[in-house]
Amino acid sequence: MKKSIQCLAACLLISLGTQAQDVYKNDRERWLEIAKATTPVLTETVKRPLKTVNVEKDEKSFQGWKITPKYSIDSLFNRSFKKNSGVIVDFGEHLTGFVSFKIEDNGRAADAPLRIKFTFGEVPAEVAVPFDPYQGGLSRAWLQDEIITISEVPTVITIPRRLAFRYVKMELLGSSRYSDFKLSDIFVKATTSVNTQAAPLAASTPELIRKIDQVGLTTLKECMQTVYEDGPKRDRRLWIGDLYLESLANTVSFKNYALTKHCLYMLAALSYENGVAPSNVFERPAPHPQINPLFDYALIYTVALKEYLEATGDKETANDLWKTVKQQIEIPKKYIGADGMMDYKKAEKEWWVFFDWRDGLDKQAALQGVVIWAYKNTYELAKMLGKEAEVKELPALIEKMTQATHKNLYDTKAGVFVSGEAKQISYCSQAWMVLSGVATKQEGAKALKALATTPEVVRPGAPYLYHYVIEAMIRVGMEQEAKDLITNYWGDMVNKGADTFWEVYDPKDDFLSPYNAYLVNSYCHAWSCTPVYFIRKYPAIFQK
Amino acid sequence: MKKSIQCLAACLLISLGTQAQDVYKNDRERWLEIAKATTPVLTETVKRPLKTVNVEKDEKSFQGWKITPKYSIDSLFNRSFKKNSGVIVDFGEHLTGFVSFKIEDNGRAADAPLRIKFTFGEVPAEVAVPFDPYQGGLSRAWLQDEIITISEVPTVITIPRRLAFRYVKMELLGSSRYSDFKLSDIFVKATTSVNTQAAPLAASTPELIRKIDQVGLTTLKECMQTVYEDGPKRDRRLWIGDLYLESLANTVSFKNYALTKHCLYMLAALSYENGVAPSNVFERPAPHPQINPLFDYALIYTVALKEYLEATGDKETANDLWKTVKQQIEIPKKYIGADGMMDYKKAEKEWWVFFDWRDGLDKQAALQGVVIWAYKNTYELAKMLGKEAEVKELPALIEKMTQATHKNLYDTKAGVFVSGEAKQISYCSQAWMVLSGVATKQEGAKALKALATTPEVVRPGAPYLYHYVIEAMIRVGMEQEAKDLITNYWGDMVNKGADTFWEVYDPKDDFLSPYNAYLVNSYCHAWSCTPVYFIRKYPAIFQK
Repeated sequence: MKKSIQCLAACLLISLGTQAQDVYKNDRERWLEIAKATTPVLTETVKRPLKTVNVEKDEKSFQGWKITPKYSIDSLFNRSFKKNSGVIVDFGEHLTGFVSFKIEDNGRAADAPLRIKFTFGEVPAEVAVPFDPYQGGLSRAWLQDEIITISEVPTVITIPRRLAFRYVKMELLGSSRYSDFKLSDIFVKATTSVNTQAAPLAASTPELIRKIDQVGLTTLKECMQTVYEDGPKRDRRLWIGDLYLESLANTVSFKNYALTKHCLYMLAALSYENGVAPSNVFERPAPHPQINPLFDYALIYTVALKEYLEATGDKETANDLWKTVKQQIEIPKKYIGADGMMDYKKAEKEWWVFFDWRDGLDKQAALQGVVIWAYKNTYELAKMLGKEAEVKELPALIEKMTQATHKNLYDTKAGVFVSGEAKQISYCSQAWMVLSGVATKQEGAKALKALATTPEVVRPGAPYLYHYVIEAMIRVGMEQEAKDLITNYWGDMVNKGADTFWEVYDPKDDFLSPYNAYLVNSYCHAWSCTPVYFIRKYPAIFQK
Repeated sequence: MKKSIQCLAACLLISLGTQAQDVYKNDRERWLEIAKATTPVLTETVKRPLKTVNVEKDEKSFQGWKITPKYSIDSLFNRSFKKNSGVIVDFGEHLTGFVSFKIEDNGRAADAPLRIKFTFGEVPAEVAVPFDPYQGGLSRAWLQDEIITISEVPTVITIPRRLAFRYVKMELLGSSRYSDFKLSDIFVKATTSVNTQAAPLAASTPELIRKIDQVGLTTLKECMQTVYEDGPKRDRRLWIGDLYLESLANTVSFKNYALTKHCLYMLAALSYENGVAPSNVFERPAPHPQINPLFDYALIYTVALKEYLEATGDKETANDLWKTVKQQIEIPKKYIGADGMMDYKKAEKEWWVFFDWRDGLDKQAALQGVVIWAYKNTYELAKMLGKEAEVKELPALIEKMTQATHKNLYDTKAGVFVSGEAKQISYCSQAWMVLSGVATKQEGAKALKALATTPEVVRPGAPYLYHYVIEAMIRVGMEQEAKDLITNYWGDMVNKGADTFWEVYDPKDDFLSPYNAYLVNSYCHAWSCTPVYFIRKYPAIFQK
């Protein structure tokens, strides 16, 4: 996920009152030490391409490109590369790591440097469609093409940037007519911090569900590096929103809780001085946060810690990071009016409020919902730690906000929750009204069911929001609908050939991009892995 | 220098008779050890650009491009690079080495990788004219542009290929709109194996001669790396022809005789199994020759060793490498007929015979000349080593060839030497007739003077041949003409702004290229440095 920095540090300081002091002054260094000490050791596996392939125009294929087998990889490695310029190799699976290749003489010794362009693709279009001219809103440098000058032959060269891909296209841009060479090897040192296997699904699990689970596991495995990355191609960093969904999926699959702990400490250690948990942090060159506070993500930190404690029983960590949770629950207070309704316009002015990639989405209802949900989870966490006294204001606040929200945002007649002055009806609003408990089970089910026939409903824009919608559906007993949504939405990606789940997906538009350039989309994206969570958390639903 | 491989190892073996044995079997390894032990330690100097510059269209400037100052280098280093994309920096001198640059945040932390294209130019045109589409006959990879992906900020990155340049253009191809950065440093670790200063010229030396000498010294210094390279941009290797001219210039300037010894051993150790000295060798990845035998270069090896002995008195080396010399003098024998004339057509069929970059040059006379010249030098070398008995056949052979050549190729009426069936008149032929001693001093002077008014004379194509022409002029007492030629030809390059002397130069055609692409020409080329030799060997000529 990447978004314009809508609220800078300066504006954040205004929103929370200027604070001269770093609230984590006494903790930061220690937390960072713990984060460093828990950095996962990556598992490294050397992988080579399985075959060479053609990429062909095909209207029926995803984004219009079909992969067909060409010839064996040995016949590439053993003959003149001059005759193979433009070759595409297929590693057979999505991999993340550093790529090396070997160049050898083919007959006469090289008498000039070589110039080869490597293009890496998670999906076929990336090795079929030229990257330039580039009109995207994100850096052109995210696109994975590298031009390498090879000064000496024979040689083994490692491309200095980490790559995420299944396909590699190699084009010869320069060589001597007086000598010849072979590209006699190409391999990736593929990494992940996953070092276990997820338990097998029940034998009765339907085939498509198995496939969705497998693609989700691969997505999760590829994103689990030294942090829970959002995507190994892009942005390659630890966002709270992605961490939350990844840790849910991890708990029911790979159970690498050390990684979750590492990330929770990293985020705490790199929190802003005013107490707000950073929307995202970078590991390199040295750990540092992006100064880009995000309202809903800060609150999600509290729930992520609670889920971690539930999964592990690790009270030591939860107690140590409790201070961070307490800081996050302060954030909404200045926006909550005496009537229990938030001044959402002010909050949206002062913060980046996300929830989904969907232009025009009204976020009033979701804001009410996420605050109540976070407060409820925080209070449960407090209880698990015996710290209710420290957050004793929460139950009354939850109660007041819940009643006010229901009163103001529930359209009794239509049976749906509305948001904002225009009384917008959206999947996002219904989901958060359910998850927060503002909606009763019956109200929630009615509201969610009503959406299918609501003409101007605002649909989810990305898999991230679909997660919360499905969780809400299950909460209100809409198990079949939840299963259908997974089967239709994620299943559609699988049927279109996805090896890993995509950052954004609209069944009606293969070219949707929040960045005005579908080639820069991430096609292995953490927040899209959550079918793994649902399939394994609620297995009964998926046996039907 | 680079040329199609006109004669392969196979054809060489035919030309010399197939030999099952490596004639250097017992010496090769020991010679290579000595070569390795004498590898020069490079002097490393960190250099930074002096200023930023504009490159402007200007018909009067070399290749149509003029450099003008823009702003200080500090104002580049201290401000957003986004506003500086396309900037050109000027290091103020030709440098060879590895380039590093530093990237730092400018305000907000980077949230995406950067993509910068660096283009390195020895001359202004290289940073003004696009390299693509490229139609040259040599590898496109020689052109010095590198696209670098920068995954982390701050960082210091060293471009992995060695570069030779004065100017660097930097273009931003990708960055985030949400963060900013500075290119806060760029520097080169400039290398050379020169670690002395050449003696100052006499105070009375004219200004232009001083400048020519200085540009020649810089050219030589830049080409003197761990071997005498032909050019630090291209081909970056040790050719016998370049070694010979460089060692002559070195003897009268930097006096790094250890480098000459290193190169003579390297060539001996890497000679072909049939005895022929390799036209050129590569140092990396491991020392190896190009299988590309060159008739005249093999013979020049003998003269280079003799010059080394004269300069140093190092009989140990000369005795050790004498075996190589003896192998070279065998090469011409199978082509020398009973009448003392060579079967030049056969030789040209079986070998690459070079002498000059000039299409249509007839090489019969030059071939006769270079053999006689090499034999004479070898006999002198033998005398210095007390080994005349080992080459006792040479005096008679020299005498017979000299008389035959004079009889067959001297046009008494016209007073010039002719070459081939078409009786071609060229600078090349006259030069080699003088240097070989076929022409008397008077005949040589008459012939060389006649060229200026010979309508269809074949002129030199490159500085390499100009060297032999000037040497010949001095030999026959044409000191003024020699000086004029240096002043006009090399002085013209200086007046056109040369920092180093160019591989090819035609005063009437700035775009001349043996490779169909003037941008791939080497603009710092060893064989063009010889004014240093003439100015310092014959100082009296240049005081006039």
